[in-house]
Amino acid sequence: MTTSPQTLSTDIAIVGAGPTALFAAFQCGMLKLKSILIDALDSVGGQCTALYPEKPIYDIPAHPAIEGGALIAALEAQIAPFDVPRLLGSRVEKLTGHRGDFQLTTARGDIIHAKAVIIAAGAGAFGPNRPPLQGLEEYEQTGAIQYYVKKRSDFAGKRIVIAGGGDSALDWALSLSDIAEHIYLLHRRDRFRGAPETLSRIESQIQKGRIEKVVPYQLHALHGSGGALSHVEVSTLSGETRNLEADTLLPFYGLSTDLGPIALWGINTHRSTVPVTPATLETNIPGVFAIGDIATYPGKLKLILQGFSEAAMAVHASHAIIHPDTALHFEYSTSKGVPG
Amino acid sequence: MTTSPQTLSTDIAIVGAGPTALFAAFQCGMLKLKSILIDALDSVGGQCTALYPEKPIYDIPAHPAIEGGALIAALEAQIAPFDVPRLLGSRVEKLTGHRGDFQLTTARGDIIHAKAVIIAAGAGAFGPNRPPLQGLEEYEQTGAIQYYVKKRSDFAGKRIVIAGGGDSALDWALSLSDIAEHIYLLHRRDRFRGAPETLSRIESQIQKGRIEKVVPYQLHALHGSGGALSHVEVSTLSGETRNLEADTLLPFYGLSTDLGPIALWGINTHRSTVPVTPATLETNIPGVFAIGDIATYPGKLKLILQGFSEAAMAVHASHAIIHPDTALHFEYSTSKGVPG
Repeated sequence: MTTSPQTLSTDIAIVGAGPTALFAAFQCGMLKLKSILIDALDSVGGQCTALYPEKPIYDIPAHPAIEGGALIAALEAQIAPFDVPRLLGSRVEKLTGHRGDFQLTTARGDIIHAKAVIIAAGAGAFGPNRPPLQGLEEYEQTGAIQYYVKKRSDFAGKRIVIAGGGDSALDWALSLSDIAEHIYLLHRRDRFRGAPETLSRIESQIQKGRIEKVVPYQLHALHGSGGALSHVEVSTLSGETRNLEADTLLPFYGLSTDLGPIALWGINTHRSTVPVTPATLETNIPGVFAIGDIATYPGKLKLILQGFSEAAMAVHASHAIIHPDTALHFEYSTSKGVPG
Repeated sequence: MTTSPQTLSTDIAIVGAGPTALFAAFQCGMLKLKSILIDALDSVGGQCTALYPEKPIYDIPAHPAIEGGALIAALEAQIAPFDVPRLLGSRVEKLTGHRGDFQLTTARGDIIHAKAVIIAAGAGAFGPNRPPLQGLEEYEQTGAIQYYVKKRSDFAGKRIVIAGGGDSALDWALSLSDIAEHIYLLHRRDRFRGAPETLSRIESQIQKGRIEKVVPYQLHALHGSGGALSHVEVSTLSGETRNLEADTLLPFYGLSTDLGPIALWGINTHRSTVPVTPATLETNIPGVFAIGDIATYPGKLKLILQGFSEAAMAVHASHAIIHPDTALHFEYSTSKGVPG
């Protein structure tokens, strides 16, 4: 990784280096457009790498199950032929200029000149929502409390409290139920929020005794010593308490996200997302596009697969900025011909 | 395969069984909606299976290169847990009814009751555009002229004339240039139409002598005997002719497609495509959606990856028809949680 500030010039500056950003770089390569990936994190992959490298994802088309890390590796292999430059560990702070002539400045002082900008920044900067419990830091330091499962095998034979009612809690409860000694699935409500198919699988593991549902309860206190957890105390709204003997607590209370400097670039935002024109993914600033989780439009689903499609559309739309005089004849990924 | 007509009932009838249709069936499974795949062809996979099972596709996200057949196999594996019924070799002829209560009738007499319909019929019925040459049929029967490369290894050591200027011609010229004895790439214009990256690769193979460009020429006559080709006669617009010694001719003049009965169902069409509302992929008929190559809207690219995204959006939109009283909380494919 380069550490001294650089000045670079490209066709399309891609802000972010998660799966959607990587696929945008691939689309640029296919259309012979130069691109640069810029990310605040030290490695490509965004949340897939930082939060769930070993978590299987089930809805990437033509990948019945693929872990976050493997998905990123496959996307990296796909862009390898294009040698796309990366500026990592380098958050974009400033965006100035206009369609055809933008300048991006990073926190480290890098300057990137670009004709168009694609913002694929996911949820912006992200960190876990931490439960307000006394003594939390001590257990975080020893790893008795973790917010991301980086290495699934660390949890083999463990008694685990998983707290949360969303997809993360459910998916990890399922994934770890094969190797853990016991899993408590804790939720403050009676019902979980997840894909119907996921809920069925959870129910099946509960029937088999692989997962114990603890509802409606919430985290109340941590007990243990020297950073080693002995039990997690949980309580109902009416004050009933229960002790769950556990080695590890995994709270999945969502991400605290922050658009950060993006909100200062004159781009219209709405509830931490960027509204775009659906046909082009262009923001209110001509030449600046937004794709992936950060982008919103009618019908938007925050699915990686939808980000891929948006990447293709945004890169095709920006081709006209970089080569205004060249019509783009390429369209089909498949075997369509034209009369010879 | 069943041969006697059936009467079936489902949530979502999917017309077509190509990659986009298969992924729509997967999305139905994830949302616990019942679906049925119905296709005129005898096997699933649409054009991927029928036209290019061994042709690598380069722009499926997280698959640096995947052959048509392998793509379909991966999608089949992805929907396997859901046991989606299929009616194959059974073209849908009639669609009647309304949102929440449709009836589809196939040519074979099957009747399918469905609450919503997703048309993922690709280009409709398809067949190759055949060049107007004398004696064509004789060479087609022996396989000296073929319109699809079903088995790449059949072309090892052959002298091949590839005719056409689009992606099919270019991609097959590239793919076969490694194993053929000689490849003539014939086009009536000077310039080919293809992805910029593809054009570079073609140029590189021309430099290496693996591909010989024959432009601007078009097919003029076939010479040979008993269905065995000896040479292909080509000519310029001004009448100059040239003989190309060849064993095989592969004309890639695109597909002749036909929306067929779909055009008779009261669905608005435009140039053999179906305009849809981008946010939902719904056609002018409430409850009838169109996705994949057959669907059009501003910004539409005919890419398989975009069809995947459309499949997700259409299935999510139809969820409200099947379960009007149940809000759909599932959205993320990834590790987002909600407060527990």
